[in-house]
Amino acid sequence: MATDIRTSSLKSPIDVAEYLFTRLHQIGVRSVHGVPGDYNLVALDYIDKVGLRWVGNVNELNAGYAADGYARVKGMGAIVTTFGVGELSAINAMAGAFSEHVPVVHIVGTPSTISQRDGMLLHHTLGNGNFNVFTDMNKEISVVTAKLNDPYEVAAQIDHALQQCWIQSRPVYLTLPTDIVQKKIEGERLKTPIDLAFPTNDLDKEDYVVDVVLKYLLAAKNPVILVDACAIRHKVTEEVHNLIEKTHLPVFVTPMGKGAVNETHPNYGGVYAGDGSQPDVKERVEASDLILTIGAIKSDFNTAGFSYHTSQLNTIDFHSTHIVVRYSQYPGVHMRGVLRKVIEKVDLSKLSAIPGPKMSNKVKENEDKSDIITQAWFWPRVGEFLKENDVVITETGTSNFGIWETKFPKGTTAISQVLWGSIGYSVGACQGAALATRDAGEKRRTVLFVGDGSFQLTAQELSTIIRLGLKPIIFVICNDGFTIERFIHGMDAAYNDIQPWSFKDLVPVFGAKEGEYKTFQIKTKAQVHDLFEDKKFNAADYLQFVEMYIPKVDAPRALKLTAEASARTNAKE
Amino acid sequence: MATDIRTSSLKSPIDVAEYLFTRLHQIGVRSVHGVPGDYNLVALDYIDKVGLRWVGNVNELNAGYAADGYARVKGMGAIVTTFGVGELSAINAMAGAFSEHVPVVHIVGTPSTISQRDGMLLHHTLGNGNFNVFTDMNKEISVVTAKLNDPYEVAAQIDHALQQCWIQSRPVYLTLPTDIVQKKIEGERLKTPIDLAFPTNDLDKEDYVVDVVLKYLLAAKNPVILVDACAIRHKVTEEVHNLIEKTHLPVFVTPMGKGAVNETHPNYGGVYAGDGSQPDVKERVEASDLILTIGAIKSDFNTAGFSYHTSQLNTIDFHSTHIVVRYSQYPGVHMRGVLRKVIEKVDLSKLSAIPGPKMSNKVKENEDKSDIITQAWFWPRVGEFLKENDVVITETGTSNFGIWETKFPKGTTAISQVLWGSIGYSVGACQGAALATRDAGEKRRTVLFVGDGSFQLTAQELSTIIRLGLKPIIFVICNDGFTIERFIHGMDAAYNDIQPWSFKDLVPVFGAKEGEYKTFQIKTKAQVHDLFEDKKFNAADYLQFVEMYIPKVDAPRALKLTAEASARTNAKE
Ligand SMILES: Cc1ncc(C[n+]2csc(CCOP(=O)(O)OP(=O)(O)O)c2C)c(N)n1
Ligand SMILES: Cc1ncc(C[n+]2csc(CCOP(=O)(O)OP(=O)(O)O)c2C)c(N)n1
Ligand SMILES: [Mg+2]
Ligand SMILES: [Mg+2]
Repeated sequence: MATDIRTSSLKSPIDVAEYLFTRLHQIGVRSVHGVPGDYNLVALDYIDKVGLRWVGNVNELNAGYAADGYARVKGMGAIVTTFGVGELSAINAMAGAFSEHVPVVHIVGTPSTISQRDGMLLHHTLGNGNFNVFTDMNKEISVVTAKLNDPYEVAAQIDHALQQCWIQSRPVYLTLPTDIVQKKIEGERLKTPIDLAFPTNDLDKEDYVVDVVLKYLLAAKNPVILVDACAIRHKVTEEVHNLIEKTHLPVFVTPMGKGAVNETHPNYGGVYAGDGSQPDVKERVEASDLILTIGAIKSDFNTAGFSYHTSQLNTIDFHSTHIVVRYSQYPGVHMRGVLRKVIEKVDLSKLSAIPGPKMSNKVKENEDKSDIITQAWFWPRVGEFLKENDVVITETGTSNFGIWETKFPKGTTAISQVLWGSIGYSVGACQGAALATRDAGEKRRTVLFVGDGSFQLTAQELSTIIRLGLKPIIFVICNDGFTIERFIHGMDAAYNDIQPWSFKDLVPVFGAKEGEYKTFQIKTKAQVHDLFEDKKFNAADYLQFVEMYIPKVDAPRALKLTAEASARTNAKE
Repeated sequence: MATDIRTSSLKSPIDVAEYLFTRLHQIGVRSVHGVPGDYNLVALDYIDKVGLRWVGNVNELNAGYAADGYARVKGMGAIVTTFGVGELSAINAMAGAFSEHVPVVHIVGTPSTISQRDGMLLHHTLGNGNFNVFTDMNKEISVVTAKLNDPYEVAAQIDHALQQCWIQSRPVYLTLPTDIVQKKIEGERLKTPIDLAFPTNDLDKEDYVVDVVLKYLLAAKNPVILVDACAIRHKVTEEVHNLIEKTHLPVFVTPMGKGAVNETHPNYGGVYAGDGSQPDVKERVEASDLILTIGAIKSDFNTAGFSYHTSQLNTIDFHSTHIVVRYSQYPGVHMRGVLRKVIEKVDLSKLSAIPGPKMSNKVKENEDKSDIITQAWFWPRVGEFLKENDVVITETGTSNFGIWETKFPKGTTAISQVLWGSIGYSVGACQGAALATRDAGEKRRTVLFVGDGSFQLTAQELSTIIRLGLKPIIFVICNDGFTIERFIHGMDAAYNDIQPWSFKDLVPVFGAKEGEYKTFQIKTKAQVHDLFEDKKFNAADYLQFVEMYIPKVDAPRALKLTAEASARTNAKE
């Protein structure tokens, strides 16, 4: 490469790819997910170089799910794919990250700017010379899409994209042409980290909102706090805990908010999801004259089919982009600043903090005479098995609803896709999450609960888990197919059946070595008990894979309610 | 459902879903691919009802690939997915069908029109009330996108979409909201089949072009015919054969044109792909003073890296949308009419038809002393193994290039994705193609050659093959990873390695029953020979799965050339 004027004026010339991956490293990314392709190969050479690990997933959709799971544990995820074929394979995962507010950086290796300019008839194109189609597809599911085509612009584009990814907690999309990968840009910039500070609110506006919030809060007789997904994604769980500590108000979580608060805290009351809640939770929340929702996503599956019996007149919603007090909207105000000031200013002597119910794992209450594993019994039992700081992943299907009945130990991280709900997600996310805990140097267990139907979509990511030497505990819930769908429509329809697999035998087929894993097949409550009490199993020193059999027509109570509501919504005219 | 004025005015009321699937049946579709989801469940109830089979794939990407493979054998393919999560998982397959001119109908079950109008916060949405994003993504990769929202319009929308899918031989995209599925429309329309006749050319224009073509054809001293992908996709192979029969001109195919002509025809000379051709083919084609290309897609991988040494001054290109004679363009003229008239009018007494080379399977020539299976030896040997009417599927990687050296028996159908090149495609396509031959009542063998790397992306579609009782012969080429990529960049790079799997053990794990399948592991030429000579193996009466070991750093000659060219193009500044 000849040194041109632009290059020779650089103080510390650095290749574009090195700049990009160094920036990711600075933000805390340690592993990059993805699949190679000839348009990204040269860029991949830089990953090792800057101290990152290349994961090399089995396919791009799984890589996207993994990057999402990684981000939920480590703060940011990254995926590299190749033009057209690779990026489109991952697009469902990226849409999921957008929907669920997860910060994932998607880097796509593309044909060179010259090939694009000349409209060359290259592999992985539509054959019509249009190289913009795939980028355009990403515009509505990324907070930034940027084409890294011009060396003068590249550094600023990268910094801006990564900053927005972090701050807005949503995906960004970057295209990196083959002829740009090794272009030199200014390396001095790397000495100044990207500014990841969250923008502060306009002070007057913030104070105004805080006063309004305090007015209603102090006037309320029995206020409660309801914590939801965006409290986690937009990183205000510390504020939430401070609010609880200070006010002693009863706190509940929504299904998507699970993991946001310490469920062993005396003020924790359980999961609120309208009619899907435990009776005492439902009663307390719905009788409350002020619900402070934090980071709410009131979607169908998060509310057991829109079954809240609460009034907006009794609600204050805290969001990352606005605050809503009853029907008054305050756009452009981030909940963080408001929450902090509310905590600081609240006059406890005037606050009415009436204790709420306490959640417990209702194992005994759900025991029955049969030895068959039931959904009602299993999930509370899981609550007794889990340990502090576990990462718990559940999948769209019975597990996403069953987990409502599991009381978490302190420090539990919960991962699921209650809004986007793409099945197969959890297997990729399990790989990403397990790797993220390891990358973070933490000794946390990763525990996955996935349906037999969902597992089939992305089964081969188990191979990556094995390849990386990760040690999750994986439960495949074997119930002969799509139980959640049966409860929505087609209880006995053949389309809700699946091909029977010998699930656990996949582990050695995917290359796990004797002694480096253990598989189990369990069919009774006693076997669950034995497993959960087993010291070795609990230690999770190697990959453990459990085939667990539950009857086909058994679903958590909340799932049945939600399924009925979905069927009704779908049929409504 | 109350009978409204619109419904009561119908002569033979029929539900929208029944109308849609009946239309697919009329066009020749017999199996519908896809994955259920609550937004499509009610529609799925109609599939059996009209005499179609629901496949129920393991995931949507695989379903899309399968529908593509099905279409290439049976004329049209169909896939049903669910809103957002399902359709986006399949979008890479649909883009591939667009790129490669394959007629696939994509039907997406969506939330009800009412939920959409109200912007409800439903599962599988982006959470922002925008229900148009996914449809918009499909606009540039579908010849028709239609939202079946209005019962007055639905029948016409469906008929138009299916007609264009057939005629333009490219995907169409339809959204079917849950509340429209059972709306009544006029069933009388079904008595009139959709008009699938190809539009005829403007007569004067056509005659003009025919005269020009004939002028150059008769003036040429040593013309040749070069048949490419779009001859197959736009259904002019009959015309091509008539042209050969009538003119006795030497005929060659491009890699993407393989399967278009009877390779046992005395005029067949082999594969032309510039420098990637056999020397005698290269010489004959490049020395020709007139090349009639039929349905050309002169993409990088189809031309061994743009290595044609031919001149546009010696070329006439026949396309489905236009004809190019030297540098003169004739837009709006379909090759079918022109070819027919050229065949009819050509004055043989004035035509110079000089015989060309003859292709043979060069097995002996590529033998060597070692017993190791080599790429050079294997592909010609495959030519001796194949039988009339086999369906042969190859994958991006060594097999897509190796197959250039395989001379096909009569009636062979070749399936591959040389332009789009999405790895993993071939496994889904194998399922679709094998099912299509069975649906057509034909006893044809389906033979798949797939790389170990590619197989991993979509391995679980083997489960669908087993579930349906299909009997393909599957060769997994085990060469420790991404050999094609190694030749482009990173010969020893870790990112071109893969996790070692016990590939053949997947067959029983995915539920194949003892006695209903056979697996093999072969590592020597002698073992290949034995297998290929084995009567039982040849009979293909059950699923057969072959792990075949070939050295890591061995690639077909044409692949090496193409890889070098790609590396050059990627690096060019
Ligand atoms: C990618 C994708 N395809 C299809 C669906 C529709 N869907 C939602 S849940 C489900 C079945 C899940 O079955 P399983 O994992 O076995 O769960 P369980 O039996 O425990 O309910 C399906 C097909 C989806 N959500 N995502
Ligand atoms: C979906 C997708 N992801 C990535 C690529 C880039 N790619 C092209 S070929 C290839 C390797 C194929 O390896 P394998 O199937 O083992 O073939 P072989 O070793 O026979 O060359 C890869 C990763 C692609 N074409 N499609
Ligand atoms: Mg299941
Ligand atoms: Mg390989």
